[in-house]
Amino acid sequence: MSANETRQQIVDVADRLFYERGYEATSFADIAKDVGLSRGNFYYHFKTKDEILDTVIERRIANTRAMLDAWEQDIDAPAERILSFVHILITNRTQIMAFGCPVGTLCNELAKLEHAAKEDAARLFSLFRVWLTRQFVTLGREADADALALHLLMRSQGVATLATAFRDEDFIRREVADMEVWLLAQSPAASRQRSHQSA
Amino acid sequence: MSANETRQQIVDVADRLFYERGYEATSFADIAKDVGLSRGNFYYHFKTKDEILDTVIERRIANTRAMLDAWEQDIDAPAERILSFVHILITNRTQIMAFGCPVGTLCNELAKLEHAAKEDAARLFSLFRVWLTRQFVTLGREADADALALHLLMRSQGVATLATAFRDEDFIRREVADMEVWLLAQSPAASRQRSHQSA
Repeated sequence: MSANETRQQIVDVADRLFYERGYEATSFADIAKDVGLSRGNFYYHFKTKDEILDTVIERRIANTRAMLDAWEQDIDAPAERILSFVHILITNRTQIMAFGCPVGTLCNELAKLEHAAKEDAARLFSLFRVWLTRQFVTLGREADADALALHLLMRSQGVATLATAFRDEDFIRREVADMEVWLLAQSPAASRQRSHQSA
Repeated sequence: MSANETRQQIVDVADRLFYERGYEATSFADIAKDVGLSRGNFYYHFKTKDEILDTVIERRIANTRAMLDAWEQDIDAPAERILSFVHILITNRTQIMAFGCPVGTLCNELAKLEHAAKEDAARLFSLFRVWLTRQFVTLGREADADALALHLLMRSQGVATLATAFRDEDFIRREVADMEVWLLAQSPAASRQRSHQSA
């Protein structure tokens, strides 16, 4: 295995363990063991757990950006793009019920640790926020696009946390259906319809 | 200081440190240092960190129950009682922006650790869930009271996680206002009004 492949494998394993067990609960030795490396060989690639964390966050940012770019390229309607985001909760439900949302739980843990990388981890949320904001603008909601983006991110985080506590798949599906109804009501056409009814 | 007072102080400090730093990141030594105890004296009270965690969770459950009982006793209207729950986000906003929700972050951490106490920690959520369900039943929403309770808990958790990531007080206040509007729309009278408009 080349040095580059070994490094890649360390980051793969660390990414998974930080998510499944938490950053603080994952030791250098845990990562080395899962990769099958001696300590000496491991230190050649990374001197500290913080360095690994930085690399893991960079990679998560790159992967998230690639996913969001692909949705924007492959899907025309902004509401459909937003639905792709909402449906992460269904696609990843098994991992979410076991370990929560990888972004939310990492941000929470690093905030408590007052870790230097906490702002970097929050950039993962910002990626989703900016992307969702752009979709709501395209949907015709320029004035409150950022608030709508944060609202949807908020619901997605809340569902993830309760899904972990109660491990209830029906709850996830019900809340996703509710988010779909909410999204439908956010198109300016739907708003006009509502105003008309209230008049 | 009596043995009982010392024990109480250990639990106070552990409760705070588990919240502010996380369970895994808090060591026996950290707790002993903040209480000002020797290791020997400390071990007289607690042999393991798990024992302390169990006691901390028991105490949080007792405190939460007392808070919810008081709201039920002091406030007549179920919608007003539910608002007391929603307003925790405002009252505790400083701690939430720094450390997240004490219930949600503990449940997430213990789930990742596959810790034996994770079900006990989830009982904290169940307390809120059962209490909120009872309020929605009183509000006249028997049929979907539990779903409404989970929905509100979900929003509260989502707000807490994003508040920690973005440290944005305006976001908290906007989402709380949104929850108030949502709550108002949940009374059966409001539902009838909506049906009438749609007809």
